[in-house]
Order: sequence, then C-alpha cells, then structure tokens
Amino acid sequence: MSTSLTGLPFDDFRSLLARLPGPDEVAVGKVRHRDRQLTKPAGSLGELEGYVEWLAAWQGKAPPRVDRPLVAVFAGNHGITAKGVSAFPASVTQQMVENFTAGGAAINQICVAFDFGLKVFDLALHLPTPDITEADAFDEAGCAATMAFGMEAVAGGMDLLVIGEMGIGNTTVAAAIYHALYGGTAEDWVGRGTGVDDEGLARKRAAVAAAVARIGDARKDPLEVLRRIGGREIAAMAGAILAARFEQVPVIIDGFVATAAATILHAMAPGALDHCLIGHISAEHAHREAVRRLGKRPVLDLGMRLGEGSGAAMAAAVVKGAAAIHAGMATFTQAGVAEKGA
Amino acid sequence: MSTSLTGLPFDDFRSLLARLPGPDEVAVGKVRHRDRQLTKPAGSLGELEGYVEWLAAWQGKAPPRVDRPLVAVFAGNHGITAKGVSAFPASVTQQMVENFTAGGAAINQICVAFDFGLKVFDLALHLPTPDITEADAFDEAGCAATMAFGMEAVAGGMDLLVIGEMGIGNTTVAAAIYHALYGGTAEDWVGRGTGVDDEGLARKRAAVAAAVARIGDARKDPLEVLRRIGGREIAAMAGAILAARFEQVPVIIDGFVATAAATILHAMAPGALDHCLIGHISAEHAHREAVRRLGKRPVLDLGMRLGEGSGAAMAAAVVKGAAAIHAGMATFTQAGVAEKGA
Repeated sequence: MSTSLTGLPFDDFRSLLARLPGPDEVAVGKVRHRDRQLTKPAGSLGELEGYVEWLAAWQGKAPPRVDRPLVAVFAGNHGITAKGVSAFPASVTQQMVENFTAGGAAINQICVAFDFGLKVFDLALHLPTPDITEADAFDEAGCAATMAFGMEAVAGGMDLLVIGEMGIGNTTVAAAIYHALYGGTAEDWVGRGTGVDDEGLARKRAAVAAAVARIGDARKDPLEVLRRIGGREIAAMAGAILAARFEQVPVIIDGFVATAAATILHAMAPGALDHCLIGHISAEHAHREAVRRLGKRPVLDLGMRLGEGSGAAMAAAVVKGAAAIHAGMATFTQAGVAEKGA
Repeated sequence: MSTSLTGLPFDDFRSLLARLPGPDEVAVGKVRHRDRQLTKPAGSLGELEGYVEWLAAWQGKAPPRVDRPLVAVFAGNHGITAKGVSAFPASVTQQMVENFTAGGAAINQICVAFDFGLKVFDLALHLPTPDITEADAFDEAGCAATMAFGMEAVAGGMDLLVIGEMGIGNTTVAAAIYHALYGGTAEDWVGRGTGVDDEGLARKRAAVAAAVARIGDARKDPLEVLRRIGGREIAAMAGAILAARFEQVPVIIDGFVATAAATILHAMAPGALDHCLIGHISAEHAHREAVRRLGKRPVLDLGMRLGEGSGAAMAAAVVKGAAAIHAGMATFTQAGVAEKGA
C-alpha cells in the first residue's frame, strides 16, 4: 500500500488509524449460513467456528482460505543490552538471523511441517537503537520509516500473516512499552525473557523503570512511547499489523514482544486489533495481563517463550485446520445425514 | 499382537494390565541431551518439549518421529437411544460412517490438512447394544471380543494413534461409566452431548442414574462397568489404547466419550494411560473433572464437542510440530550461535 510520508512523519499513521476498515459482515453471514448446513451439531467445533468467521470477516471472503500463510519474523538490535539485561549476548540476534536463513531454527521446522511461507526482515542489525534509559530509540522520521518498512512486508498475496520477532534485549523494551502504556510498576511487567538470572532480572527492572521515568508525560502518546522507548523490530511489527488491516490479511500475533507492538496500535484505536488473534500465552508472566487488556482469548496456552513467531505459527496450524474443516465438509443434504430432531 | 482368549475372557486383559511396559528412559535421556544443544533458550518451547520426551518414551526412539500418524474412529450403536437421550436419531451413526467414507466429515478435512491417516471401524452398527437401563451391554465373551477387535486396529506401522468415536447416544453411556467409577450424582456427569433439549437432558440423567443403579456393586470392577453399561466403540477404544502401549505407539485421546474408554483402563491400573495424552478439553462440562481425575493436562482447550477424534487430531498437529522442531533444529555448534552467558 502507499505510505506517502508528508507533513509530520507520524501524521499518516494517525490518519490510517482513524479510518480503519471494518469487518466484512456479508462474508461472516455466508460462513454462518454454511456452518449451519455442515454435518455436525451446531456449535460443536467451538472456537474453530469463531476462527473461520474471523478469517472471513477480515479476508472479506467466504469461505475463507488459508492456502498461503506467511510467517514474518522481524529482527532488531537494542542498545539496552549494554545494561546486562539478557542471558544471551547481543551478537546472537545476527547469528539467529543466519540460522533462520540456513533453516536451522524452530520456526523453520514449524513452517516446513505445516507448509507455511517464512520471511525474515533484518532491521539494520549493525545499528542497535540507543540505550533507551539514556536516549530515544528513534527520531520521528526514523520511527515512521521503520513502521513503513514493516508495512511493505505485507505484500505478495498471503492470506494469513503470522507476526514474530528476534532481538536480544527486546523483552526489556517490550516491558518498558507495557509499563509506559499501562502503568503499574516495572516489576509488574518484567520477566526473565530468555532466562536471565536474579541479578540480571534486577538490572532489567531498573532499566525499564529508568526508561519509562525518562520519557515523563510522553507516555500518554502511544506513538511517542514507540519512538522513545521502542525498537526497530517493534516499530516494523506495528506497521505490518496496521498494513494487514488495509490489505485484508488477518494476523496472528506471537508472544510478549510482538504483542507489545500490537499494544501501541490498540492504545491509539481500540478496534485496531480486531483483525488479529493472539496466537498463544507466553510463559513470560506479564503476557497474560497484556493480553487481558487487549480483550483477547489466545488460541494456545503451551508455556512457550521462544519468540520467532513460534507460538503464533503453531496457532496458525490450528486456524488452517479450522478453515479446511469449514471449506471441505459435506452438508447434511450432500451426505444424506439426518439433522437434529429429524 | 496376539490376544489368545483362554480361560475367562477378561483374564487376558487383567493380565496385560498387570504387566504394562514402562517408558524408554534411554530415549528420553537422548531427547533431553539433544534439546540442550538446540538453538533456543532451555525450556523455551514449554509443553512442546514435554510432548517430544513423551513421544520418545513410548515410541522407544530418539529423536521420535510423527511421520505416520493414524486417526482411528470407532463407531457403535446404543439401545439407550430408545430413551430419548439424544438430539439426533440413531440412524445418524451409520450415516456419519458413510460420510467418513465419502470424505465429508470434519475429521476427514483435518486429516487431509495435516496428512494424517484415517481408519473408521464400524462395530456391528446393525446390532445396537441393549438399553443399559434394562440389560447388560455385553456378555463377557462379547465384550472381550470387542476389546480384542480394538487391539487389532493397532497395526500397520503408525507412529502416533489418535483415538476418536461416533455413536448416537454414547455421551449417555460415557456419563454412566464416569458415574459408576467416580460416584457423585448422575447430574455431575451428564451434559447436553450433541445438543439435547431440557427434557432430553432430564431423560438422559434419569437413564444414567438407572443404569448405574441397576449394576449395584458391579461398579467396583472397571471391566464389569464396561461390560454392563458400556458400548461397542468404547470397548474397542479401550482395547486399542491398551494394545498401543505394547506396540510402542503413543496415543492421543479425544473428548468425553473416548476419555471414558481410557478411564476403564486407568481404574484398573493407574499407570495405564502414561503413554496417552488427552488431546483437548471438551465443552461437555464433566470432561474437565474426568481429565482432572486422570491427572492429565490436555493439549488444547477450544470448546470443541464434536467427537470423531476431531479435538485429538488438532492436538496431534501440535505434537507433530513439536516432533518436527526437535528433529530438525540446528545445534548451537552447527549454527555458530553463542550460548547463554557466552
């Protein structure tokens, strides 16, 4: 989609969020009509029926299809790692991007198992954002350009988008975003990420508290939160989620970090995530509270905390199954099966 | 496997349950050793890591594979339908078996989507078991022969078995089994099944109470519970679950009715279901309590209540993904990724 960045760089995004397209109620009606004719008791597929209606609403198509799902993994580096907030060195971000490219990561195996496409977007890994306890992550033009880069990722005809990330230090950044938007204390939002020890956890809490204190009342503007204490992959994910809405591509969002990107949009427009599912509840403890604030019920609850879009991709398999059931089942008439009470 | 039915027909089953093979701890050790080398933080795949250990333990193989999963659907008819306990007529069992054969049911679409095999076992649909409020479902020879038939279903080299069922009236039979084994009141165990109305629900509760009252102290012997108030597909599922243990095939059990079959084995030997996962929590309300009594944590909780193995098959997709991740991921050394704290 076109993203001409005129005026102040953030103006286009504010404008897009003010005119979000709604669901295709005609497609939803068609799905409900067909569902009632399928050879099963009404309602007996539970959440799967809701997923099919959701796909139809946001693809604008009945029956909806999940034939070309794409997993998009956005990778960024973070100056905050200098504060000793992660169990892994910052060099691992680049190494893991190479692992994705070579096919060796968990997300590669999931994509092969379920025939999903995978694209990895490397966001200037050689240029970590500044340490957000000391300086803003971006200027407005840089943040807007990164969001626009994420928007461009939604191209090529996918029918379902799975959003994931990689970035050593980014659970710290995500916690700072939640703390800035939702208040509470840094402790409420900070967890062990990839497995930081007790001392690292204390440093992480202090870093999150300092970053949020630094920006003061700027926390009241979600785009300013993103610009000042966000990160490149988070800005790009926010852009991709927003673009997908306009491109009629439903989105499944991964765990703690990807949800933080989504939260920026939700804080700007409460309906901004209506075209999104949360794929799973992360083991990062504050994710449950973040998801609750979005009013979402995640597809899976498997104690995963890997990132890479891995939990959301597993959820996409469930959604793909739901779409296949709806599209392929026989009706009572076709199968010669007696209906309820017949 | 051989099932020579000598002596009293149930003796062989009691004997098998007394000498259940244990897990392959060597295979589990190999999985844990490999898992520690994979390019991810330790423990970050949550339950998926447990599923891989479970597969290895009961396949006796590391890494375990899910290359040839089979969904086995057992169908039976029930004289209890004469009591007006179901929203659908008994003729639907046969019609749905034909729908499975023609590829039109929900389970067919799931199997196509995830490349699972599907076999449907039709258990003398023209001969419903007697109304269990009035007479025993089987004599001992008939019950044992049906269990043996289920055991024979575990053949052909599958590496994962998904157990499901079809049978109008069988949530009534399952509720009677739970009530007999676990006590409480009929109300505790009876739900709406495929969607019976309030009057039907009252008839269903009365039928379950009457069936369990009829057998008196026979409820203390699980095989007698199966014989007197069970059904053909339930006996066959119990046999299949038991045979899978000896054939080194892990099992994923579907919802309310399939779990009732499993419960018979668990009541005879507490470790009898160690090679089984419960695929999902059914919307049939008493399933949650039944699963709790088995000490299991289901893979999915999606409000499904269709049967046919549909919830367990969706869970099998998750387990297949877990196995693919473990088998295919690169190690830290292979990928040149720095380890934690490095």
